[in-house]
Amino acid sequence: MAETPPKAPTPPKAPTHPKAPTPPKAPTPPAPPRGYTASKDELQKRLARIEGQVRGVSKMVAEDRYCIDVLTQIAAIEAALDKVALGLLDDHARVCVLGGETGEREQRTEEMMAAVGRLLRRG
Amino acid sequence: MAETPPKAPTPPKAPTHPKAPTPPKAPTPPAPPRGYTASKDELQKRLARIEGQVRGVSKMVAEDRYCIDVLTQIAAIEAALDKVALGLLDDHARVCVLGGETGEREQRTEEMMAAVGRLLRRG
Amino acid sequence: MAETPPKAPTPPKAPTHPKAPTPPKAPTPPAPPRGYTASKDELQKRLARIEGQVRGVSKMVAEDRYCIDVLTQIAAIEAALDKVALGLLDDHARVCVLGGETGEREQRTEEMMAAVGRLLRRG
Amino acid sequence: MAETPPKAPTPPKAPTHPKAPTPPKAPTPPAPPRGYTASKDELQKRLARIEGQVRGVSKMVAEDRYCIDVLTQIAAIEAALDKVALGLLDDHARVCVLGGETGEREQRTEEMMAAVGRLLRRG
Repeated sequence: MAETPPKAPTPPKAPTHPKAPTPPKAPTPPAPPRGYTASKDELQKRLARIEGQVRGVSKMVAEDRYCIDVLTQIAAIEAALDKVALGLLDDHARVCVLGGETGEREQRTEEMMAAVGRLLRRG
Repeated sequence: MAETPPKAPTPPKAPTHPKAPTPPKAPTPPAPPRGYTASKDELQKRLARIEGQVRGVSKMVAEDRYCIDVLTQIAAIEAALDKVALGLLDDHARVCVLGGETGEREQRTEEMMAAVGRLLRRG
Repeated sequence: MAETPPKAPTPPKAPTHPKAPTPPKAPTPPAPPRGYTASKDELQKRLARIEGQVRGVSKMVAEDRYCIDVLTQIAAIEAALDKVALGLLDDHARVCVLGGETGEREQRTEEMMAAVGRLLRRG
Repeated sequence: MAETPPKAPTPPKAPTHPKAPTPPKAPTPPAPPRGYTASKDELQKRLARIEGQVRGVSKMVAEDRYCIDVLTQIAAIEAALDKVALGLLDDHARVCVLGGETGEREQRTEEMMAAVGRLLRRG
């Protein structure tokens, strides 16, 4: 890899006026880490691909493609969505449930089970 | 219902020049009618909505929204896709199978059943 | 097991009067052929096997087997049921829909689509 | 395949002392509690009902009942099985995962997710 040139010294930061302190604004709380934080990029790539697949189905319809071929594409989109969903569930189980405080685990497990029910179409 | 006023006579159309006939262009064969031809507009509206839902999920992930809420949206997208698929199947059964030539019905039924198997995730 | 006492001879049936013939009773109409008539034996074998699988799950529970192993068996039963259902749908489409009178096809297609919706858990 | 060499004669077993009575053998360990232990009776009642439903479908076939009615019953059985499966998953999550030793939780979560995948028919 190319050597990086020596860095110019960072300029000293402008001193904050001691007399006019900015009021301590309520800091917007940082988004809490989510189960999928570690795999966020990968997740968004997949969702972009799924969006493209849906657009593709719309194009197939515009071109009067054969119904059965359209249906095959829809089944493929559902498979891709299920894969995303299973990944999210797994992340949730590991990070939000197992990694949660003792007091939170119970509720997060309950929410997870309700989500499984909806994915099974029994929600 | 209110009476419609007598219509103004439609103005005569501008005559097309008799001397410059448009050359007979090789006709692109008309797309064969598909099962969904009658409901094509409605179908595309639904697909556009589903595309927006997928984009919405991507935005939720960008905003670090709670896993379970993301999963709920994915389940909703799958429900919408299933509804589209059931509509396409129904159109196919009526138009392509029942409305097909005797010789085509057998094969189209077979294709339809394979499509149902894929939607049931047993394909 | 207790011995069964010797049976008393069955009394002779009252002779039917040769002169008063029973009026020809309206024959119970034979069951109409169903889509699955040709594969009825095979179908019942499969159902018997599925019944045995359900009994097997009950036995696993009685023996306190690991939850996950019980769930694996349940998923296997659902796969077997889906296979039976896809076979019945296929038979229905060929025999009852395609083989039906023109006037019946429309309604049987509608019923078939409703059945697909229920199998997709969207009914 | 290589020939197996002639086996050396098995050495005579050490004689058990006639006078030393066999020590009371360690009792077979009781089955570990399972996620569903608390609801075992209820679970078995449900499974017995499902078994009866499968038998009912077989009877419908024997009586040449209409394909669509048979399919409706199959969909009902699958709904009942899904309900049992969701209950087992929930029990597993609470008892075996949350209630497990720290070292076991990871693996049990993994197994649970694999089970969800199979129920979603993506296993």
